[in-house]
Amino acid sequence: MAINASQVGLLIVYTGQGKGKTTAALGLVLRALGHGLRPCVLQFIKSERGRWGEAIMAERLGIAWRALGKGFVFDPARQREDAELAQQGWAMAQAEIASGAYDLVVLDEFTYPLAFGWLDVAEVVAWLVERRPPHLHLVITGRDAPPQLLAAADLVTEMVMVKHPYDAGVRAQLGIEF
Amino acid sequence: MAINASQVGLLIVYTGQGKGKTTAALGLVLRALGHGLRPCVLQFIKSERGRWGEAIMAERLGIAWRALGKGFVFDPARQREDAELAQQGWAMAQAEIASGAYDLVVLDEFTYPLAFGWLDVAEVVAWLVERRPPHLHLVITGRDAPPQLLAAADLVTEMVMVKHPYDAGVRAQLGIEF
Repeated sequence: MAINASQVGLLIVYTGQGKGKTTAALGLVLRALGHGLRPCVLQFIKSERGRWGEAIMAERLGIAWRALGKGFVFDPARQREDAELAQQGWAMAQAEIASGAYDLVVLDEFTYPLAFGWLDVAEVVAWLVERRPPHLHLVITGRDAPPQLLAAADLVTEMVMVKHPYDAGVRAQLGIEF
Repeated sequence: MAINASQVGLLIVYTGQGKGKTTAALGLVLRALGHGLRPCVLQFIKSERGRWGEAIMAERLGIAWRALGKGFVFDPARQREDAELAQQGWAMAQAEIASGAYDLVVLDEFTYPLAFGWLDVAEVVAWLVERRPPHLHLVITGRDAPPQLLAAADLVTEMVMVKHPYDAGVRAQLGIEF
């Protein structure tokens, strides 16, 4: 859709320990699509091999969608591989953001490469602030968002876990958790 | 999709003062669609006349979607009209939930009719717990969710507003806020 003067690109962060961070970003993608905005989703941790409900819908709706991760790796011996993946992912994110092809870019679980030190937080935040096209909305999700990112953001919501079904022994539910 | 034994319908509440409550519910709708689950969205406050990005997409995707409200009314003289609308909306919600036609029902901004006393909280919660089909996921959004609802819920996330662009004088952005 045409960019007009009232359109100001927001830097939005959904963080916290509660559920609903990625899910809220997906809702923004749906809303943006309804207005003819062009969304792009880059997932930093989730594996391409996962059969996520949202990835199935993205394919059906023709949404640009890239899964850049291999799932969470808790093996310290493989941290270097994760760091390399994150750096490749960040290079791809920079290219997509700067391309002018999108109005809304979601960097899903992007807080983890920042929090784990796989990327330089100050460099990343400076790039996002200075180089992002002015109309582009950028959404970053994940726990433990670094303070420098929060300081640069326009809108920050912390999702606080009040109650979780795992506590009651209920397994992850298809269509809800994945 | 076929209901299997591991599918347990969750009662999910997104509450709090922060952004992302309705948006997260929309994300669940997208995710559920990806898995062939059948979603239904009932909006209790938002007006049918609004041109919400999500409503446009719902139409395009063939999602059952009903806007039951007339927007927020702050005129005390019209509270009775709001209460009647809420009661009609709740009757429709009960019918849709009990119909067996849906796997995921969203009652958007349903906390307000409860918090404002337009509906009896104890009756509503008892009905939801006892009469909801066992496989059906129910999602309720809105600020000020009553304690009885939280007690009955399986999953509760509080969206906490950490930072909001209105504070910096930025207007609501198309594709993000609506």
